[in-house]
Amino acid sequence: MIPLAEDVLAGQTRAIARAISRVENGHPDKEALIDALYPHGGTSLILGLTGPPGSGKSSLLDLLIDKERSAGKSIAVIAVDPTSPFSGGAILGDRLRMQKHATDDHVFIRSMASRGHLGGVAGATSDAIKVLDAAGFDIIIIETIGVGQTEIDIVELSDIVMLVLVPGLGDEIQALKAGVMEIGDIFIVNKSDRDDADKVKAHIEYVLNFKYMEKPDQKNPIVMTSAVKQDGINTLRDTIQTYYQTILNNGMLEQKRKQRIKAEIKNLITAKIKSKVEAFLHDQGSIEAMVDGLYEKKRSPYAIINEKLNRFLQEKQSI
Amino acid sequence: MIPLAEDVLAGQTRAIARAISRVENGHPDKEALIDALYPHGGTSLILGLTGPPGSGKSSLLDLLIDKERSAGKSIAVIAVDPTSPFSGGAILGDRLRMQKHATDDHVFIRSMASRGHLGGVAGATSDAIKVLDAAGFDIIIIETIGVGQTEIDIVELSDIVMLVLVPGLGDEIQALKAGVMEIGDIFIVNKSDRDDADKVKAHIEYVLNFKYMEKPDQKNPIVMTSAVKQDGINTLRDTIQTYYQTILNNGMLEQKRKQRIKAEIKNLITAKIKSKVEAFLHDQGSIEAMVDGLYEKKRSPYAIINEKLNRFLQEKQSI
Repeated sequence: MIPLAEDVLAGQTRAIARAISRVENGHPDKEALIDALYPHGGTSLILGLTGPPGSGKSSLLDLLIDKERSAGKSIAVIAVDPTSPFSGGAILGDRLRMQKHATDDHVFIRSMASRGHLGGVAGATSDAIKVLDAAGFDIIIIETIGVGQTEIDIVELSDIVMLVLVPGLGDEIQALKAGVMEIGDIFIVNKSDRDDADKVKAHIEYVLNFKYMEKPDQKNPIVMTSAVKQDGINTLRDTIQTYYQTILNNGMLEQKRKQRIKAEIKNLITAKIKSKVEAFLHDQGSIEAMVDGLYEKKRSPYAIINEKLNRFLQEKQSI
Repeated sequence: MIPLAEDVLAGQTRAIARAISRVENGHPDKEALIDALYPHGGTSLILGLTGPPGSGKSSLLDLLIDKERSAGKSIAVIAVDPTSPFSGGAILGDRLRMQKHATDDHVFIRSMASRGHLGGVAGATSDAIKVLDAAGFDIIIIETIGVGQTEIDIVELSDIVMLVLVPGLGDEIQALKAGVMEIGDIFIVNKSDRDDADKVKAHIEYVLNFKYMEKPDQKNPIVMTSAVKQDGINTLRDTIQTYYQTILNNGMLEQKRKQRIKAEIKNLITAKIKSKVEAFLHDQGSIEAMVDGLYEKKRSPYAIINEKLNRFLQEKQSI
């Protein structure tokens, strides 16, 4: 076994950080590393946490970490960081949070940029989860900001998705639109001390009624919290535990994990074969010629693509 | 040539609608149809229009259609419709707009659902654009709602992207986050009669300053409009024309169209080979076995995927 894999399995913080870097950067050892770690995982509870900017996710997460640590649980956090395309900076809150827990070996916090990963950020996050799972963390929390398709792909890597909404941001529409309501398991109304928090709760219940018409057995808890007043955190923790027991017992967890594996197999295959085909076309100098032929309308798109694909498939190759 | 293609080239509205349906539904004739139409396109100006819900895009679009019709231009609109995952309904505004122009043969308006397309909504939209382009519309407008990655993929199918922002929605953050500011060519501040419209403009200028540090030659116009007061629509139309002439003359339009063709070649190849691999695995009953092996930790992910992919590549196949 790769020495680094042994150190990860022993729970060494530095080795875990280095392994995640290798996964992120597409290190030559990446596949061997993940394959060595994979059989040792499967014990972590993977939580997703998402919601619009300004909903207080980071403060909530901080309180949740404190609660779980008091209960003796080890926790890893991957914060997928929507760095601005211009600034490229990480988010200040993450840095502060990292400092606070810097001396605690049972808390591991890592920011991952949401751009610039070969195979997409969901692939890199999925491999990072495998590293943390093998390292034996009780709980892994994937935090994303926003409600786009990328964020949905990422939180779908978790066993339980927690969606944070708040009064006054006008983001109910956003959440609805992007289909995030559909993937939420536990709904959190944060800033519950504000007047209009009950309206947000009522709105969630209204939307969920449509969901229950299709899936009547899928009742989703709604938890009211106030990170500022530290209200509702115990209830949130209990709700997560109860929800986990429910999906463990009724088979939903197994079903969800199998669906995740299936999606990942398809994504990995697509990414690999895509780079293989692109390398094939590149070697032949084909792509530029295809672009020119299509731009000048001398060729038609499907004809030229089918021709090249057939040529690719006729050659014996290996990954 | 397929008879339907001839009718599309003759500009028959019903044929155009039917051709787009075939493209959307993956009709067996789809590839032959697009390949027959493709050489006749290339003359339409393709505009993208995006922005958050509530920014008044539809009203703006309506006014722009009126202006272009007065100037004798023919216009097609594809509204990519973020139907709620629960309601599945189309947007009321679209229906009203369609009724208004229903008797005008030089205006074609079509809603496309953003979900449920084989090969993705961007692929279906791209083929729909080829149909409209071949049918000879002077201007094709692609309208999307929201600022997620899917929306970005779609508006990137256009020659000029117009991003609508408004005061008070708090969506500047959203726009920044999702990288939409990066793809905007023309920025529209709608509801410019409101007090804080100047702030939105100043914010856009501030963000663009970072962009100009990297790409100093790429000056992006900012247009103030009020759809309600019908202000700024002539300026918007002039701005589009001027911007079009600029990118036509400086080669950016050609560069952009070639990049688009390149991206589309890669996407089509990936989609085709992906379904080919999945069919191969399905025929072998492999996927379920792979899922079980991984779920039970009897196999590791990269090992099993590389094994199956090699088996696929060793067999001679054709598309």
